[in-house]
Amino acid sequence: MNEPRHADALQTRQASAAPVVRDLAGLLDALRASAAQRDREGGHAAQEKQWIADAGLLTLAVPREFGGPGAHWPDIYDTIRQIARVDSALAHLLGFTCLQVVSVNVWGNPEQRTRYLNGTVEHRWWWGNAVNPLDTRLVATATGDGGYRLDGQKGFCSGTRGSQMMTVSAHDPATGKPVFAVVPTGREGITVHEDWNPIGQRQTDSGSVSFAQVRVEPHEVLDRADTSYASLRTLISQQVLTNLFVGIAQGALDEARAYVTQHGRPWINSGVDKATDDPYLIQRFGEMRVQAVSAEALAARAAYALDDAWRQGPSLSAETRARVALATSEAKIVAHSAALDVSEKLFDACGARATHAPLALDRFWRNARVHTLHDPIDYRVRDVGRYALSGTLPEVSLYT
Amino acid sequence: MNEPRHADALQTRQASAAPVVRDLAGLLDALRASAAQRDREGGHAAQEKQWIADAGLLTLAVPREFGGPGAHWPDIYDTIRQIARVDSALAHLLGFTCLQVVSVNVWGNPEQRTRYLNGTVEHRWWWGNAVNPLDTRLVATATGDGGYRLDGQKGFCSGTRGSQMMTVSAHDPATGKPVFAVVPTGREGITVHEDWNPIGQRQTDSGSVSFAQVRVEPHEVLDRADTSYASLRTLISQQVLTNLFVGIAQGALDEARAYVTQHGRPWINSGVDKATDDPYLIQRFGEMRVQAVSAEALAARAAYALDDAWRQGPSLSAETRARVALATSEAKIVAHSAALDVSEKLFDACGARATHAPLALDRFWRNARVHTLHDPIDYRVRDVGRYALSGTLPEVSLYT
Amino acid sequence: MNEPRHADALQTRQASAAPVVRDLAGLLDALRASAAQRDREGGHAAQEKQWIADAGLLTLAVPREFGGPGAHWPDIYDTIRQIARVDSALAHLLGFTCLQVVSVNVWGNPEQRTRYLNGTVEHRWWWGNAVNPLDTRLVATATGDGGYRLDGQKGFCSGTRGSQMMTVSAHDPATGKPVFAVVPTGREGITVHEDWNPIGQRQTDSGSVSFAQVRVEPHEVLDRADTSYASLRTLISQQVLTNLFVGIAQGALDEARAYVTQHGRPWINSGVDKATDDPYLIQRFGEMRVQAVSAEALAARAAYALDDAWRQGPSLSAETRARVALATSEAKIVAHSAALDVSEKLFDACGARATHAPLALDRFWRNARVHTLHDPIDYRVRDVGRYALSGTLPEVSLYT
Amino acid sequence: MNEPRHADALQTRQASAAPVVRDLAGLLDALRASAAQRDREGGHAAQEKQWIADAGLLTLAVPREFGGPGAHWPDIYDTIRQIARVDSALAHLLGFTCLQVVSVNVWGNPEQRTRYLNGTVEHRWWWGNAVNPLDTRLVATATGDGGYRLDGQKGFCSGTRGSQMMTVSAHDPATGKPVFAVVPTGREGITVHEDWNPIGQRQTDSGSVSFAQVRVEPHEVLDRADTSYASLRTLISQQVLTNLFVGIAQGALDEARAYVTQHGRPWINSGVDKATDDPYLIQRFGEMRVQAVSAEALAARAAYALDDAWRQGPSLSAETRARVALATSEAKIVAHSAALDVSEKLFDACGARATHAPLALDRFWRNARVHTLHDPIDYRVRDVGRYALSGTLPEVSLYT
Repeated sequence: MNEPRHADALQTRQASAAPVVRDLAGLLDALRASAAQRDREGGHAAQEKQWIADAGLLTLAVPREFGGPGAHWPDIYDTIRQIARVDSALAHLLGFTCLQVVSVNVWGNPEQRTRYLNGTVEHRWWWGNAVNPLDTRLVATATGDGGYRLDGQKGFCSGTRGSQMMTVSAHDPATGKPVFAVVPTGREGITVHEDWNPIGQRQTDSGSVSFAQVRVEPHEVLDRADTSYASLRTLISQQVLTNLFVGIAQGALDEARAYVTQHGRPWINSGVDKATDDPYLIQRFGEMRVQAVSAEALAARAAYALDDAWRQGPSLSAETRARVALATSEAKIVAHSAALDVSEKLFDACGARATHAPLALDRFWRNARVHTLHDPIDYRVRDVGRYALSGTLPEVSLYT
Repeated sequence: MNEPRHADALQTRQASAAPVVRDLAGLLDALRASAAQRDREGGHAAQEKQWIADAGLLTLAVPREFGGPGAHWPDIYDTIRQIARVDSALAHLLGFTCLQVVSVNVWGNPEQRTRYLNGTVEHRWWWGNAVNPLDTRLVATATGDGGYRLDGQKGFCSGTRGSQMMTVSAHDPATGKPVFAVVPTGREGITVHEDWNPIGQRQTDSGSVSFAQVRVEPHEVLDRADTSYASLRTLISQQVLTNLFVGIAQGALDEARAYVTQHGRPWINSGVDKATDDPYLIQRFGEMRVQAVSAEALAARAAYALDDAWRQGPSLSAETRARVALATSEAKIVAHSAALDVSEKLFDACGARATHAPLALDRFWRNARVHTLHDPIDYRVRDVGRYALSGTLPEVSLYT
Repeated sequence: MNEPRHADALQTRQASAAPVVRDLAGLLDALRASAAQRDREGGHAAQEKQWIADAGLLTLAVPREFGGPGAHWPDIYDTIRQIARVDSALAHLLGFTCLQVVSVNVWGNPEQRTRYLNGTVEHRWWWGNAVNPLDTRLVATATGDGGYRLDGQKGFCSGTRGSQMMTVSAHDPATGKPVFAVVPTGREGITVHEDWNPIGQRQTDSGSVSFAQVRVEPHEVLDRADTSYASLRTLISQQVLTNLFVGIAQGALDEARAYVTQHGRPWINSGVDKATDDPYLIQRFGEMRVQAVSAEALAARAAYALDDAWRQGPSLSAETRARVALATSEAKIVAHSAALDVSEKLFDACGARATHAPLALDRFWRNARVHTLHDPIDYRVRDVGRYALSGTLPEVSLYT
Repeated sequence: MNEPRHADALQTRQASAAPVVRDLAGLLDALRASAAQRDREGGHAAQEKQWIADAGLLTLAVPREFGGPGAHWPDIYDTIRQIARVDSALAHLLGFTCLQVVSVNVWGNPEQRTRYLNGTVEHRWWWGNAVNPLDTRLVATATGDGGYRLDGQKGFCSGTRGSQMMTVSAHDPATGKPVFAVVPTGREGITVHEDWNPIGQRQTDSGSVSFAQVRVEPHEVLDRADTSYASLRTLISQQVLTNLFVGIAQGALDEARAYVTQHGRPWINSGVDKATDDPYLIQRFGEMRVQAVSAEALAARAAYALDDAWRQGPSLSAETRARVALATSEAKIVAHSAALDVSEKLFDACGARATHAPLALDRFWRNARVHTLHDPIDYRVRDVGRYALSGTLPEVSLYT
C-alpha cells in the first residue's frame, strides 16, 4: 500500500524499522502478554530483556561503521515507541542503552568508540548508567596514571541491574570537575542494589549503585567534550522520555479499544444497542486519539530536527542545537499531557469493571505519572515561553 | 542557515515559497498595517486583493503545465497560513481561489482545464463560488443544448464579490441531481449582494448571490466526477480552514509578543522589574506557543498526506483518500482549539489596556470564532472516534 | 473564632459534628496512620471499622426518635468527607451504612423502623448491601407466608463483609418485580466472598455475595414505595459518592502540602531558595485548592437542597425531588474532576521522589479512579444538559 | 413552591430581592431588548440608567438607618448578577454605585454618612469615581482650611459620566499620602471625557476625568481609615466583578438556550430530528451549565462570608477579613473562567448563523474578556496557592 508520508502514525510502522529488527511484532506480542503481571511484580525482567537483545535492538544507535544499522533518529524512536506501547519500562531500558551508546559515540576517542560500539554489536551489551546529575555522592580520586578510583553512591541508575556495561559520572574534589567513564558493570567493588520500588515504571532496573574502591582504567575515561554536538546527548535522552510518553498514550488507547470492543456494554440509558455506538464513548475515543496523534506528530517533528542536527556532526552550531532543544521541549510538553490524560480516560472508556486489579490497566497512568516527573514540566514550559516572548533560545543544561 | 527539516515552523519560511512569490514579507507588512481598520470597516478589500494578485499568489494551485508554479500542498498552505497570520479573511479568499482552481482541475475536461487554468495565470482571476451545499435554493433548468438557466439564490458565497470567475452548484429538479459549472461573475443576471456582516472574518466577501435567468453555456458545465481523487477537493477545502486557524493562532501570538515587548508593565506584586521577566507571563507564552506549534505540526502532517494522495491522481484509492480525511480532521480539531485559545489568552498576556477598541486585538478571536463554526467540531471528533474505536475510516461527505 | 458561615470549608470543621462524634480528630489521625499500608494490603479493615463504630458514627443517619443524633445531611456528609480525606474506602463503608439506614427509614413500616433503627443505635451495626441494580442474578421465590427464599448471587456488595445487617434486592420471576428486604448478614445460606480486588478503594468490602436457600421472614420484607420522598435514597447514595470525591481531592491536597513542606526542594533552575517560594509550585497549589473548594461548595449546595427536601417527608413533590437530583448531578460532575485532577497533580507538586511505592501517594488517584466509574459521568452531564437546554428535569432512575 | 435553600440559583430568584425592587423582571426585559444595539453604539445609556434609578436600585447598599433597604450582601449581589445577565455594563455601573456608597459608609464620619447616604436615597444619585489606584496623576494641594485643590487626571473612572456624585482619590505631595473625598460630579473644574472605547463593557462610562483647580471642601474629605472592616471595601469591589462574570456566564447560557430552541437545526449527519435531541449539543449545554452553577455557588459562598464579616463592623479581625479575601479570590477565579468559557461555547451551541453581527452574541465574550483583565488572575491564583501551600492568608492590597 502507498502509505502517505506522515500518515497514520498510530498504526504499526514496521516497514521503516525492518532492516533493524527481524520480528518486532512477535516481540511486541510476547512483551504485551506478561506486561500486567510484570508490572505487579516489579523487579527485573531478565527473560524479556534477553528477547529484546535477541531481536538485535540493542545496536539501534550504533553507526554503520561500527557494525550497527546506522538508523536515523526518527526510526530509532519509532522502535522505542512501539515497545513503550506495550511496556514502557522495557522501552526505557532500550532507550537508555541507546543513550549510553551515544555517550561513547560523542565523548569517546577513536579507540574507545571502536571498542565499545563494536562490543555492543558483538556482545549485545545492555548498558546501564550511574550518571544522575542531581546526585553528587560519588567521588573520583585520580590514581596518577590517568585512571581513577570511585567511592560512593548514585541513585536512579536506570538499566544498571542486568547490564553488562555502564557509564559513570563522578565528582573529582581535587579538580572540582566531573569525571566520566565506562566500566563493566561486573567490575569488582560495584554493587547494584535492588531498591527500586516505585508506583510505576517498575521494571526499569533503576535502583542505586554503590562503588567501593572501584578501579577506572585510563583508557576507560571519556573526554566529556562541551560541544553543541556532544550536548545533543541530553536532547536524545529527553526524546527517549518523550517517545515513552507517546507510546504510553498509544498503548492506553490500544487497550481501551480492545477492552471496549470485547467487553463493552451500552449504558442503561444510552439508547444504543452496542457500546461501540455510544456517542459519548465514540467522542472519548476521538479525544484520546487526537491527543495521541498530536503527541506523536510533535515527537516526529523533534526527531527529524534532531536527526538533521546529528548528521551535521561536531560542526553543529549552538543555535541549531538550541532549536532542536526547543522542538524537544515542545514535544515533551505535549506528550506529557497525552500520556497522563489518555491513560486516565482509558477508564472512562472502559467502565468500572476495568478497575479489576489483575488487569493492571492503571499501569499506563502509573507509568506515565512516574516518568513525567523526571524533571518538572513547568520549567520546560518556561523555556518555551522565554523563546516565544523574548526570542531567547534554551541554554544547554542538565535537562535541555 | 541550515534549518532542521521540521524545525521552527512558527518562523517565516519564505524560502520554500520563494519561487512563487516575489516579496511575501512586503505584502504581509502591508496587509498587517491596515488589518485592524479593515476588520472594523468590513466590506470589500479591493486594494489589498489587488496586491495579492500582483504578488502572483492567485496561481498557487495551478499546475505547471498550465503555467502555474506546480506548488506542493505543504507550500501552498504555508503561504496561506502566513497571510492568515496577518489577515485571516484575505487568506480565506486566497485559499478559496485555490479551491476553485482545484475544482476545475479535477472536474474539468482538457479543454476546460486549459481555458480556466491558463486564464487564471494570464488574467490573475480571483475566483468566487456559489456552491454552499446546505443551501438548496438555486435551481438549474436544462436549456436542451447541454447548457442551463440558473434562477434563485445562494448564501455564504465566499470570495464572489470582487471576483472575475466563479463556480456554481445548482439543483436540477428534472434529474434530481446537482449541476456544477463555471461562469464569469459579471455575467448578466448575477447580482452579488453586500449582505455579509458577521462578527469576524469580515472581509471574506461571503455575501449572498442572486441568479435571474443566468445562462450557463454547455462548455461551462463541469462533470462532477465522483472519484476518490476528485473528492480530495473537500479535504483541500478543510485544510484551507485548518491553516487559517493555525495562522490565526500564530498571528495572535505575534501580536501578543509585540504588545508585551513594547507596552508590557510588570504587575504591582510580581516582584520583577520587567514584564518579560514575569514567571506567569512567560508561562502563558509557553502555553500559547505549544498550542500554535501543535496545530502547525498536525496541519503539516495532513498537508503531506494530502500531497502524497494528490500526486497519485485519478487512481487514488478510497482507503488512502480516507486516511487523508482522517489526518485532516485531526489537524482541524487541534487547530480549532489553538485558534480560539491563543486568541483569547492573548489578552491575559497583554492586560487590560490591550482591550482598547481601535487596536482590534479581539479580531483574532472573532475571526477564529466565526470560522471554527463552518461545520461542527463535535461531528469531526466523532469521525476520529469511530476510527479509533472501531477502525471505521471517515466516509466521503460534504465536509469530510 | 468567628468563622464566616460558608468560609474555609477545607479546614476541619469539627464543631458542627461535635454532638455526634467524641474525638473525630483522633480517629482521623489513627486512620491516616495506616492508610497507605492498608491500601497495599486491601482486604478487610476490622480494627479500623471497630474504631469508627466506637466513635458512634454508625448512627449518623438515624433520626432522633430512634435514638440517633438526628443530624442534618450537610453535617452527615461533612463527617463522611472528613473521613474520606484520610481514607475514602472506610468513608465509603460509613456512607453506605447510612444509606441502608435510610432504606429502612423510607421503606420500613413503623415496626421495622423501630427494630432496625433502634438496633443500629443499640448494637452499632455495620450495614452491608446486596442491591446492585445492574446485577439480576439473585432470585426471590415467595414462600407463601409473605416471606421469600433467595438463591443466586450479587456483585459489588459494598460493606457486606464484616457487616451485621444487610439489605437485599432480588428478582421475583413470578411477579416480575423486585423484592427488597433486610437480613442479618450471618443468616444461614449467605456467603460473603473475598473477591474484591480493584486498583483502588480496596477496603470497601465490595466482594460478591452468594445466597443458597436463604430464608427471608415476612417481617423482613420492606415495601419499596415509589414516592418522591423514598427515591431521595438514590440521591443520598449519589451524594455519598460525591463527598468521597471531594474528600479525596482535599486529602490529596493535604498530603501534597505536607510532603512539599517537609521534603520539597527547589528546582535547580528555579532561582528560589525554598520549594515553597517556587512560583509554579504555588500556582499548582492554587489550582488544586480552587478545584477542591469548588467541589466542596457544590457538594454543600446539593446537601442543603437534599436536607430541605428530606425534611418535607413523604409529601415531597416530584419537582422538588428532581431539583435535588439536578443539584446532586452538578455536584458530582465537579467533584469527579476535582478528585481525579488534584490526585494527579499532587505528584507535579511533590516531584519524582514522591512516587516511591511505600508512600502509596497514588492511592488518591486510584481511589478516585475506581469510584468515579460507579456510573458514567457522560450521562450525568447529559441530564444536566437536558435541563439547561430544554428545561427537562432529571427523571427518577437507578442513578439519579 | 418550596425552593430548596441553595437550589436552582440559575433561575430568577426575585423573591429575595422583592423588598428592594418593584419590577425587576420588567426592568430586565427592557434592558435585554436594547442590549445588542447599545453594545454596538457604546457611549452612555442615559435612558436605561434612569430606569435603574427609578426601580430604586441605587440604594441597594444603603443601611436601613439611612433609609435604605439594609439588604444583605448575597441579595445585593443577586440583584447585580441578574442585571449582568442581560447587560453586564449597566450591572457594573450599579455595582460601583453600591461601592461608593460603601466607601462613604466605612470612611465617612456620622455627618458625612447622613448627608451622602440619605442623599443617595432622596436624590437617587448615581455615583462615579476617580480612584484608580494605579493612576497617580491626580494631585491634591491642601488649602489650609482642611480642604484641598485637585489638579490632574484619572483614567478608568467607571460610572462617572452621568453620575451626580463621585469619590476621588488624589496624591498629596506635601504629605506623601492619598486624599480621599466626595465631590459632586458637576463641580466646577471637573471634566468627564468621552474617551472610553473598549472592545467590551462599552457602556460603563469609564472614561478619564480631568480636574482643573477643583475645590474640595473640608467636610467632603473622608478619613480613609485603615481597618480590616474598612478594607472590606476592596473585597466588595472584587465581588462586584465576580458577580458580573457569573451573570455573563448565565446570560450567555440564556441566549444559547433561546437561540437553539428557536433557530437550532440538527446537523446533517447527526441522525436526530431536532437540534435539542443532539447528544453533543446536550452535552455542551450540560458543561456550560456546570460552569455557570459552579461560579454562582462560589460567588454565593464568598458573599455569605462577606456578609458575616461586614456585620461584625469595625471590630472585624484581620484574620476573618483575610478569610473573606481568600473566598473572594476563589470565587473570582472560577467565575473568570466560567464567563470566558461559556460565552465562547455559546457559539458552538448555536452554530455559524449566530455570528451575524447585528445579533451581537459575541458581546458576552467581549464583556467577559474586558472585565476579566481588571487585575491579573495569575496573581490571584498565587494568593490562593500561598494559602494552600503555606497557610499564608492574603494580605490587604489594592486588589485583595
